[in-house]
Amino acid sequence: MQIDIPTSNPLGSTVTAVTVNELLGLNTLGISLARIDFAPKGLNPPHFHPRASEILVVLEGTLYVGFVASNQNNNRLFTAVLNKGDVFVFPIGQIHFQLNVGYDDAVAIAGLRSQNPGVTTIANAVFGSNPPISPEVLIKAFQVGGDVIKYLQNQFWYNNNS
Amino acid sequence: MQIDIPTSNPLGSTVTAVTVNELLGLNTLGISLARIDFAPKGLNPPHFHPRASEILVVLEGTLYVGFVASNQNNNRLFTAVLNKGDVFVFPIGQIHFQLNVGYDDAVAIAGLRSQNPGVTTIANAVFGSNPPISPEVLIKAFQVGGDVIKYLQNQFWYNNNS
Amino acid sequence: MQIDIPTSNPLGSTVTAVTVNELLGLNTLGISLARIDFAPKGLNPPHFHPRASEILVVLEGTLYVGFVASNQNNNRLFTAVLNKGDVFVFPIGQIHFQLNVGYDDAVAIAGLRSQNPGVTTIANAVFGSNPPISPEVLIKAFQVGGDVIKYLQNQFWYNNNS
Amino acid sequence: MQIDIPTSNPLGSTVTAVTVNELLGLNTLGISLARIDFAPKGLNPPHFHPRASEILVVLEGTLYVGFVASNQNNNRLFTAVLNKGDVFVFPIGQIHFQLNVGYDDAVAIAGLRSQNPGVTTIANAVFGSNPPISPEVLIKAFQVGGDVIKYLQNQFWYNNNS
Amino acid sequence: MQIDIPTSNPLGSTVTAVTVNELLGLNTLGISLARIDFAPKGLNPPHFHPRASEILVVLEGTLYVGFVASNQNNNRLFTAVLNKGDVFVFPIGQIHFQLNVGYDDAVAIAGLRSQNPGVTTIANAVFGSNPPISPEVLIKAFQVGGDVIKYLQNQFWYNNNS
Amino acid sequence: MQIDIPTSNPLGSTVTAVTVNELLGLNTLGISLARIDFAPKGLNPPHFHPRASEILVVLEGTLYVGFVASNQNNNRLFTAVLNKGDVFVFPIGQIHFQLNVGYDDAVAIAGLRSQNPGVTTIANAVFGSNPPISPEVLIKAFQVGGDVIKYLQNQFWYNNNS
Repeated sequence: MQIDIPTSNPLGSTVTAVTVNELLGLNTLGISLARIDFAPKGLNPPHFHPRASEILVVLEGTLYVGFVASNQNNNRLFTAVLNKGDVFVFPIGQIHFQLNVGYDDAVAIAGLRSQNPGVTTIANAVFGSNPPISPEVLIKAFQVGGDVIKYLQNQFWYNNNS
Repeated sequence: MQIDIPTSNPLGSTVTAVTVNELLGLNTLGISLARIDFAPKGLNPPHFHPRASEILVVLEGTLYVGFVASNQNNNRLFTAVLNKGDVFVFPIGQIHFQLNVGYDDAVAIAGLRSQNPGVTTIANAVFGSNPPISPEVLIKAFQVGGDVIKYLQNQFWYNNNS
Repeated sequence: MQIDIPTSNPLGSTVTAVTVNELLGLNTLGISLARIDFAPKGLNPPHFHPRASEILVVLEGTLYVGFVASNQNNNRLFTAVLNKGDVFVFPIGQIHFQLNVGYDDAVAIAGLRSQNPGVTTIANAVFGSNPPISPEVLIKAFQVGGDVIKYLQNQFWYNNNS
Repeated sequence: MQIDIPTSNPLGSTVTAVTVNELLGLNTLGISLARIDFAPKGLNPPHFHPRASEILVVLEGTLYVGFVASNQNNNRLFTAVLNKGDVFVFPIGQIHFQLNVGYDDAVAIAGLRSQNPGVTTIANAVFGSNPPISPEVLIKAFQVGGDVIKYLQNQFWYNNNS
Repeated sequence: MQIDIPTSNPLGSTVTAVTVNELLGLNTLGISLARIDFAPKGLNPPHFHPRASEILVVLEGTLYVGFVASNQNNNRLFTAVLNKGDVFVFPIGQIHFQLNVGYDDAVAIAGLRSQNPGVTTIANAVFGSNPPISPEVLIKAFQVGGDVIKYLQNQFWYNNNS
Repeated sequence: MQIDIPTSNPLGSTVTAVTVNELLGLNTLGISLARIDFAPKGLNPPHFHPRASEILVVLEGTLYVGFVASNQNNNRLFTAVLNKGDVFVFPIGQIHFQLNVGYDDAVAIAGLRSQNPGVTTIANAVFGSNPPISPEVLIKAFQVGGDVIKYLQNQFWYNNNS
């Protein structure tokens, strides 16, 4: 796992994962780790892991974190401000994010319950898929005009998972 | 499971699920069913199931369906046009949708591999959470101005899962 | 999944399954579907799935369905008459059956919690195995004479799972 | 586990199981044991375990054992004659039996992969359920007359699982 | 499984296992068996199975058996003296042992909840590893002098698992 | 999770775990974390987790780490010297240890694949159980005299898992 990790990108955050793709010895063990580095105001944007729950501990800095429950729980948002040493949990398949709200860099370590947890960043998957989703679907789903959808589908969606 | 299911709502679709919440006998069995009714042009908007893979069969009509793979698969979009009798698969935690592209009503049945699969509709969870996600997070994540985020957070997000 | 499915066979029923053998994309997903078509008086005879619980919904017609609990539950029989839209559950490894008790054709869809659920029809497995089970075993097990066992072992046991 | 186990019953065999019902410490451990005692010619009749694979070792005597594969494997019968020390496997949900073909008593020990494996004896479940299965189902399923079904449903079906 | 099993070795015990390595048919079934033969005073020394809980039944003789709970349960020792027919349970990953405290040979059968349970004998793994563990680690861990550790690392550690 | 963690104890190390016992939200999620602090020469002594594989990353310092494979792999010892950012894996139920071989304090974070992984320290469980294991067992198992066993059973075995 790299230790001097640059975060000068559009999101101000970088996720460095150690899964079975990086470390073959994880095969069949069902666990992986990730380190998340944040510049000041850096964001790990709304995403979820299709195959893993996550436990996160803050090593440095202050993070505003949250996850959104599913429809049957009325899409309730659970948030916390975490300082050094604080621990938080993101259940499998719940959309979550972390924002550095301190003045300095922040660092967190996450344990994930799969050797191949996967990560789906919402903006990238919805507006940056290859090929694009039919605008007819997105216009109806997001209740905006075709121009907004066109604008979003033309953006470059940075993937902060290295 | 209701049989004359109205679909006159903003999305033109209604999902009627039979999970352990509706049928106690499903407890410990790890499976559930859903029926999806579509008006013409009706959409089951981008969503995912945090705890279940899904297999879908079309009973009536013609559906344009798709799912988006995770970041490590470059957010590839897999789509198909399904007619009566066709079957498609949505792996656990992959964002997917179905759009009625025929002239008549459409009906599909889905099997889900959990007695409590959950469903998270992307628009509802991201822009309609309770309480709302901090605009700072959404502005940075979706690369749009605060006015667009404000507009989206003020919409009424219809939940087509009855 | 075929849509005009003939049911003119000795049992008056046909099971059309979509498992990992028919749809490779089901691999690792742990779920499959089956459609069951019944002629009037058609029977899906007593059988069980060695590796899957089942959830069944009636699309057309009226079915008398049931399953038999294991010895420790005193082989209790649970039955129901199901109409269009009704849902029933058959737990893993419980012997069950469906009989069309309406005047018209009937159709049901079943979700099964395995990509390879297997099906063992009782009559076929006990009296139609290849090679046959020793008559000494069957005479003692079923408390009938050797002539009855011989008669049964000489029958043609139709397999309604296409 | 009892050690002098009588086998003077209609089947000439007695199964003594140690499951979570007999030994609470098995809870959550997912395993159980059974001892099977056979009189000469004693039969453990065709049955299956809905929730467990089984591994069997012969302690005394000679057993003719077998299991029948599912429909998709053409109901193939796998058999063996086992002597003292021999081991055999019955996969989850496969119909199997053991017959003492030696001149003396026989004893076997079975390990089962569930703390609550269940056992369904075919004859008991099909012809001795409570209440009985509708004769219409059984006549069609077993291709015999109503008199044979009536005869079978009037038998006393001994349960050799103590 | 061998039936006349010699136990004239330093421990006075021999474990004869039937796992997927000995019986390919166990593959995917998640269960295995072992027979343990004891000379008088024979010991199956402290060991554990990294991937299986165990259920043990005594066929002949009298055994003093026990297992030690984990740190959070204060390393509590659970013991019992078992006679013919008695059953005991060793939960997954708990250190356990069996000692023949009768005057005659003893025999037990164990069911294990894995087709490949593994066995780690404490003395062999700690003092007989290949290559040896650094003495610095063992001196501090066992609070003894380097001479004792050197003595132990020079022993021949018999493996009673045939 | 505490952040200024004292390590002035006989082992020179302290494990601070966040399992379901400390954080109720981990229930059903199947994952936990631990932080391990080491004084110079501090040792996390040979132990194993009965219900979890572990992935470890070094945050500060230099650790000599290793695990011992099971008997069937000839108790092979796998070791590595890890510096800041290095990652290592300890499979479920394998005996492992970490020794600070740097001049300064060291810190590591471990992810464990269970909300309740358990930890069994070898010395504590074997020589410090409550009540003690019969010396007859330990003398034979460790091939030492009764005086050595008596000495070991009279030690105070420090538990570095807070």
